[in-house]
Amino acid sequence: MKIVVLKFGGTSVGSIDKIRNISNIIQDYKKKGNKVIVVSSAMGGVTNDLIKKSRMISKNFSDAEYDVLVSSGEQIACSLIAGKLIDKGYKSRSWLAWQIPILTNGHYKNSRINQIGKKEIIKYLKKGGIPIIAGFQGVNNEKRITTIGRGGSDASAIMLSKFFKAQRCIIYTDVEGVYTTDPNKLINAKKIKEISYEEMLEMASLGAKVMQPVSIQDARLNRIDIEVKSSFKKKSGTVITKKSNISNNRIITGITSTINDAKVTLVGVKDKPGVAASIFKPLSKNLINVDMVVQNISANGKETDLTFTIKSDDLIKTKKIILRNKNIVYRDLKFDKEVSKISIIGVGMITTPGVTFRMFQKLADKKINILVISTSEIKISVLIEKKNVTKALKALHKEFGLNK
Amino acid sequence: MKIVVLKFGGTSVGSIDKIRNISNIIQDYKKKGNKVIVVSSAMGGVTNDLIKKSRMISKNFSDAEYDVLVSSGEQIACSLIAGKLIDKGYKSRSWLAWQIPILTNGHYKNSRINQIGKKEIIKYLKKGGIPIIAGFQGVNNEKRITTIGRGGSDASAIMLSKFFKAQRCIIYTDVEGVYTTDPNKLINAKKIKEISYEEMLEMASLGAKVMQPVSIQDARLNRIDIEVKSSFKKKSGTVITKKSNISNNRIITGITSTINDAKVTLVGVKDKPGVAASIFKPLSKNLINVDMVVQNISANGKETDLTFTIKSDDLIKTKKIILRNKNIVYRDLKFDKEVSKISIIGVGMITTPGVTFRMFQKLADKKINILVISTSEIKISVLIEKKNVTKALKALHKEFGLNK
Repeated sequence: MKIVVLKFGGTSVGSIDKIRNISNIIQDYKKKGNKVIVVSSAMGGVTNDLIKKSRMISKNFSDAEYDVLVSSGEQIACSLIAGKLIDKGYKSRSWLAWQIPILTNGHYKNSRINQIGKKEIIKYLKKGGIPIIAGFQGVNNEKRITTIGRGGSDASAIMLSKFFKAQRCIIYTDVEGVYTTDPNKLINAKKIKEISYEEMLEMASLGAKVMQPVSIQDARLNRIDIEVKSSFKKKSGTVITKKSNISNNRIITGITSTINDAKVTLVGVKDKPGVAASIFKPLSKNLINVDMVVQNISANGKETDLTFTIKSDDLIKTKKIILRNKNIVYRDLKFDKEVSKISIIGVGMITTPGVTFRMFQKLADKKINILVISTSEIKISVLIEKKNVTKALKALHKEFGLNK
Repeated sequence: MKIVVLKFGGTSVGSIDKIRNISNIIQDYKKKGNKVIVVSSAMGGVTNDLIKKSRMISKNFSDAEYDVLVSSGEQIACSLIAGKLIDKGYKSRSWLAWQIPILTNGHYKNSRINQIGKKEIIKYLKKGGIPIIAGFQGVNNEKRITTIGRGGSDASAIMLSKFFKAQRCIIYTDVEGVYTTDPNKLINAKKIKEISYEEMLEMASLGAKVMQPVSIQDARLNRIDIEVKSSFKKKSGTVITKKSNISNNRIITGITSTINDAKVTLVGVKDKPGVAASIFKPLSKNLINVDMVVQNISANGKETDLTFTIKSDDLIKTKKIILRNKNIVYRDLKFDKEVSKISIIGVGMITTPGVTFRMFQKLADKKINILVISTSEIKISVLIEKKNVTKALKALHKEFGLNK
């Protein structure tokens, strides 16, 4: 059976008109002879309204009841989509998590899907039906509703693709796909035709908001090809797939930049074993994520300057923790929020030497100072002054041939 | 186990403040040592919003998907109520129809409850939990959601009372109870303390909007005492119970009046067998309900005048059917919308002779002409001119001692 999973996000089903629109998309796939499984999010805005209600009831609203509450949003969207398809003459019906069932590991508000019942859906597909499955929800083994945490309905679509061995999983959203860099920041940004899971993971972790990293990881582990595309424009999107499927021999696939990083520098720290641990341990305990770290040994060899980056939101908390900690000895403490992290991402850099050099040289040419560096196998990140972000993005985008 | 079923209607849970209010009511019952089962409708307005959405999707929206759609309303209300009780420190949780399960006869949009699973709820009650059960919904034996038709959440409350052998079933609504007559029409109207199922059935059928006749009938068949009361005022309401529980020796319990009746008169109909059937059969086929009927034999004994009443809404349709029917021979056809039906209801009239006479005499005293009469064991209805309604209500209300 040639099964296609189509997932529609909140903006794609955000109004009756938009539901009419996606019913046409579903119809197109059906007409081409596919067995179509639809997964839907709640209509845009509905989930937030429900969450607002729960907060009005209690600042500490029960997790289990939260899941009962918010899962009604997908129930509403699915019944309306099925109703529209029936109105068009198709055999269709909504399926809620308990009806399939979609079984989770049991955690409220943040579940993972363990198992999906296939029998009923397969029978229904064979009869020519179009099942409209509520995303974001599952049931635990106590027969209670548990919602999927980060990734939400995307995770549902990917797990359904896995269990039903779908040939394609298409995520319809409000953007046309994944871009070489944020089109709002650089007009030259180009839509990427194909991207590897690993690159997409880096892009997502570094700020590309198309999909949650956890969903990309699910797709990677289960070798599910995902196409991300717009439900509003008839254009091909971006396919997220395994490296070996990508023919294109580019070095760099995308460039990201952040605006919510902050730099912390401890000047004149005593250079002795355990000093870094004494600084980072209390931060980690307080769930503050330290990203880039650099340590310069001072001229006399007895002192060192320690610099690291955190999210700007964590700045006040970090300051308090360091000032409170009597074990950390230093001469001066500096904070800088006017910084930005620029990253170039590409599996091509594994096999192409000199990428780092080209990046640094280009930034030097543009008189952009590099404050901190961090690298992984397929990514190079540098911290620069915020005022230079656009200049850097533009220069690097051109340098690595992404304008074409 | 001393179980109390508390049912809250849409206006009683219409806002977060109102949910806070009913959580106090629930708490009061719990503190008095009751095992409390709560049944809730959707928050006021939610169901209508959902129905509106379905109509925007299709004028002929699927019945099965309609049930999936609208049942989300009760899901939302129940999770919020449970959330509020948990916030107050109580053990509580929402229960949806599929989780109990509440099994229906299977019809979409208009199901009846056949069976309710007791095991889990009983276990939960024994542990001190307060189950918040979604009204208006059930599941059929195909594991699909089916909503309860007329009566809705009231029917759910009554059937839960039956299966759990509840000592009391309390319907919280936006009125204080059942009145001797509509308080909006007669300032002297008094709240009735106790009313029999049979009287309440007549009152409901004749326009008292407190409960649907079908729910009263359910209660009657299962001998469930119902108390109808306001969730906004701390006052006792009206208990609907069996005749033998009512000590009070009044003759008349309540008086109703309608404003949506119309009178049809066929003048000079040939008085031969089958003539009435030839008129009423096509009306019945067209689902037009004929209420009161009177036939006067004319002086010469060959012709008759046939008068009957219908709902005003059916007047145009009725006119068309009669005019179209060539088998009906008459001299003249008259219609009158300026009529109203006044009914006095009371089980006391079974054992008290002369009630009819007292009613007719009182109306005659007030110079109110009676156009048509119909009676049952516990009810006398008369059709009068609409302009006389208030005068008649006032006179009869006093005559039968209901002002006290």
